[in-house]
Amino acid sequence: MTSSPATPSPATPTASLATGQRSLGVPADAADAPGTAPGPAPRFPLWPPLTGGCPVTSTDSVAYPVEVDYAYDELPADFFATAGSRPRGHERWAPLLPPLYAPGLAEGGTPLLPLETLPLEGGVWVKDESRNPTWSHKDRLNRVTVSAAVGVGAAGVVVASSGNHGASAAAYAARAGLRCAVVTSVDVPPAVDAFLRAYGATVLPVPTEERWPLLRRVVERAGYHPVSNLTPAAHTGHAFGPEGYKTIAYEIFAELGLAPGSVFVPTGYGEMLFGVWKGFTELARYGLVDRVPRMYACEPAAGGPLAAAVRAGVPAAHVSPGPTAAYAIDCAVGGYRGVVAVRESGGGALLVSDAEMAAARDELARGGVWGEVSAAAGVAGVRQLARGGWAVEGPVVCVSTSSGFKDRDLLAVPATGAVDPGDWAGVERRLRG
Amino acid sequence: MTSSPATPSPATPTASLATGQRSLGVPADAADAPGTAPGPAPRFPLWPPLTGGCPVTSTDSVAYPVEVDYAYDELPADFFATAGSRPRGHERWAPLLPPLYAPGLAEGGTPLLPLETLPLEGGVWVKDESRNPTWSHKDRLNRVTVSAAVGVGAAGVVVASSGNHGASAAAYAARAGLRCAVVTSVDVPPAVDAFLRAYGATVLPVPTEERWPLLRRVVERAGYHPVSNLTPAAHTGHAFGPEGYKTIAYEIFAELGLAPGSVFVPTGYGEMLFGVWKGFTELARYGLVDRVPRMYACEPAAGGPLAAAVRAGVPAAHVSPGPTAAYAIDCAVGGYRGVVAVRESGGGALLVSDAEMAAARDELARGGVWGEVSAAAGVAGVRQLARGGWAVEGPVVCVSTSSGFKDRDLLAVPATGAVDPGDWAGVERRLRG
Repeated sequence: MTSSPATPSPATPTASLATGQRSLGVPADAADAPGTAPGPAPRFPLWPPLTGGCPVTSTDSVAYPVEVDYAYDELPADFFATAGSRPRGHERWAPLLPPLYAPGLAEGGTPLLPLETLPLEGGVWVKDESRNPTWSHKDRLNRVTVSAAVGVGAAGVVVASSGNHGASAAAYAARAGLRCAVVTSVDVPPAVDAFLRAYGATVLPVPTEERWPLLRRVVERAGYHPVSNLTPAAHTGHAFGPEGYKTIAYEIFAELGLAPGSVFVPTGYGEMLFGVWKGFTELARYGLVDRVPRMYACEPAAGGPLAAAVRAGVPAAHVSPGPTAAYAIDCAVGGYRGVVAVRESGGGALLVSDAEMAAARDELARGGVWGEVSAAAGVAGVRQLARGGWAVEGPVVCVSTSSGFKDRDLLAVPATGAVDPGDWAGVERRLRG
Repeated sequence: MTSSPATPSPATPTASLATGQRSLGVPADAADAPGTAPGPAPRFPLWPPLTGGCPVTSTDSVAYPVEVDYAYDELPADFFATAGSRPRGHERWAPLLPPLYAPGLAEGGTPLLPLETLPLEGGVWVKDESRNPTWSHKDRLNRVTVSAAVGVGAAGVVVASSGNHGASAAAYAARAGLRCAVVTSVDVPPAVDAFLRAYGATVLPVPTEERWPLLRRVVERAGYHPVSNLTPAAHTGHAFGPEGYKTIAYEIFAELGLAPGSVFVPTGYGEMLFGVWKGFTELARYGLVDRVPRMYACEPAAGGPLAAAVRAGVPAAHVSPGPTAAYAIDCAVGGYRGVVAVRESGGGALLVSDAEMAAARDELARGGVWGEVSAAAGVAGVRQLARGGWAVEGPVVCVSTSSGFKDRDLLAVPATGAVDPGDWAGVERRLRG
C-alpha cells in the first residue's frame, strides 16, 4: 500500500503535514525469516484512523499499532525557532500533528519546574501536566483523538476509563459538540463520576471484564469513535493519539534549548512514553538536538506489562497486577509502542513500588507540586536508579501527570481534629508538627 | 511621611521598582470637611508590609488598605512588548510587582478561551484560572504574600481559609521552606483537609468566630506572617497581595492586544477585582491601552458586602449572608479596594443567585471548562446584564477562578447506577440522555 495525502480541510487552523499511517509492526515475512532484513513498514492512507491496529502485521496475540507519518521536508525552516510567536495549544505545533478538527482548550504549555531536592548532574526538572485543561496529560491526546472523531463524522466518542482519560475525552467532546460515552468500572469514585457528568458525558458503569466488549458494541452499533483502546490482543490505543504527546518533547526543547539526557514517564500503556520519544526523534531529524533522551518507563511494581515484555524480548505482554494505589497506570496488558521507545532510546523499564511512589509524591508536594500517587512514578524511578548507584544521564525530566485531587484514597486519611483556640500550648504543639 | 526606596536584594530575580506603600484611604481631614479636596495620600516605606491597613486613615469601622507604589518612570520602554521573551510566572512582570523573594511555581500564564455560547459584540472570553499551580487564581496572590513573609524573615505564614487560599499559601510556603498554619472552620471538607496537609501545612480547625482571633494569636505569639486578612473592621487583606492579580490584566492585554470593555470577576473581598483594575490603569498610564475596562464585581446574592457598600456609598459594609453553594466568595465583610475598582472604572456590583451560578457553571462545563460554582459567578453576571437588556461593553472577559473539584457539594449528587452491558436497549436509552 502506498502513502496517501491528507485530505485538506478549511476547518484545520494550520495545514497538517500528515501524509498517512505507517505500521510499527514488523512485516510477517521478515519476522518469519530470521536474518532477513525487515521490509518497508506497511503504509496506509491517513483516513480512517486504524483504531484496531495494523491490519497487515497484527497477529492473534499482538495488535501492532500504526503511527502517523508526515511530509517532514515541507516544514518551514524556522518552525521551532518561531514557536513562541504562535498561539498556544496544539495549534502551535499543527503541521506536525494530525489535523486539528476539534476546537482546543489551550492544552499543553505546562511548566518545567526545578526539583531541587534531587541534585543530579545537569539538574532535575518536573513537567507539571496538572496544568492542562482537565488537569492531566490526557488532554494532549484527546485534542487529537476527538479531532479524529470529527474528521470521520462520528456521532460521538466512546472511551473506557475511570479517570483522567474519560474526563478529558468528555471535555473535548463537549467543546466539539459531540456526544461522549464513558465506560467505567462499577467502583468508579464518586468525584470522578461527578467530573465526567459535569461535561455532559454518559457514564456507563459495568464490571471490569465487560468494559472493552461494551466499548466495542457502542462503536459498532451507535457509530461512536473509540478514543481509547479497542483491541483485546495487546494495546494499540488510538492511531493518532500518541502524536499529541510529541508536544511535550517540543516544549521541553523550547524551554531548555536542548534534549535532556533522560526522561522518566509514569507508564500505563506507554502511549505518552512513545509520543515523547517520537517528538525528540523529530527534533533530532531536524538537527535541533544532538541526541534522543533515554526513555524510562515507570510502572507500578504490582503489575508492569511493559517491563515484562522488555524482559522477555516480546512486543507485548500480559500480567496479573496485584493491588496498587496507582490506579491510573495499573494495566494488565502492554503495547508495542512503549517497547519501541525504551529499546530505541537505550532507556529502561522500571518497576516502582507504592511506597516509592508515595514518598516521591510527598517530595513533590513539599516542593509545591501536588500530584496523584501515579503522577510521582517518574520521580520514584529516578530515585530508584540513583539509590542503586546507577548512572542517570542528565539533565533529567520527570513527567508529573495529574493533580492530587484524582487519588482514590484521598479521603481515606482521617480528618484533622478540631483544636481548642483557647489552648495556646495545644496550638503550639500542632505548629511544631 | 515620604516614600522610601525598596531595599534591593540579591534574592530578587529581577529588580522590583516598588518604592513604598500608599494609603487608599482618604485623609481624615478631607473626609471630615465636605467640599475640601483630599490631600495627598499618606505614604509609608515598602517594609514592613502594613498587614493591618493604613495606620493614618483607618477608623474604628473601616481599616483602609494600602497599595504598593512604583518608580513607574524607570520601566524600560519595551517592557510589555518583550514580555513573551521572558521566563513565565511572576518573574515575567517582576519590576511592577513587590520583590519576589519566594521561589515560584510558574503561576499565571492562564489561557483566554472564547465562550461561543454567549455571543456579544466584541466577543466573550473566559480567563481559566484553574490552570494555576494549585488550580486557582490565589496562586497569583500567594507568590507575592509568601515573598513578603520571606522578606520580613518570618518563621512561617498563617492564613484563615477553608479552601483555595489556604492550599495556595501552603504550596508556596512549602516551596520557600517556611512553615504554614491554616486556620479552617471545623466543617472543612475532607478533600480540602487532605489538599492542605499534602503540602505539609498545619491545619487548625476552629469554630468560625474563632478564626480571626486565632490567626492574630499565631501572628503575635509564633511570629508567623499573615497572608490573609487580619482586621475585624472591614477587610484589608495583605498589603502586597493584590499586586499579584495585576498580572491578569497584563496577560489579557498581551493576548488581545487591547483592553476589554468589561471584566466580570467572582468577588469575595474584592482583592482580585482591585488588582485587575490596577493592572489596566498601569497599562493606560503607559499609553498601551486607551481605556480601563468597566469592572463588575459578581457576588453571591445571599450576601454581597461590596454591593451593599456601593449602594450605601460607604467604604465597606457588613452583611449577614444566607446559605450559598459559592462558599469561596461567601463573605460577611467587605473591603474598600473593591469599592475603588467599581467606582473608578464605571463598572457595577452585581448580585448573582446560586441558580444563576449553577447555570453558568454548566454552560462553561459544556464548553470544556469545569469550574466550581463560585468560579462561574462572572459568566452569571454577564448573563444577568444581557438578560436584563443592559448594554455590556465588549470585548468581555470573565474570570473563572478555580476547578470543579473544589466544590463542597460535589459528592452530594447520587452516583450513576451500573448498566447491564447485555441490555443494548438500556445502554441506548442512556446514550440518548
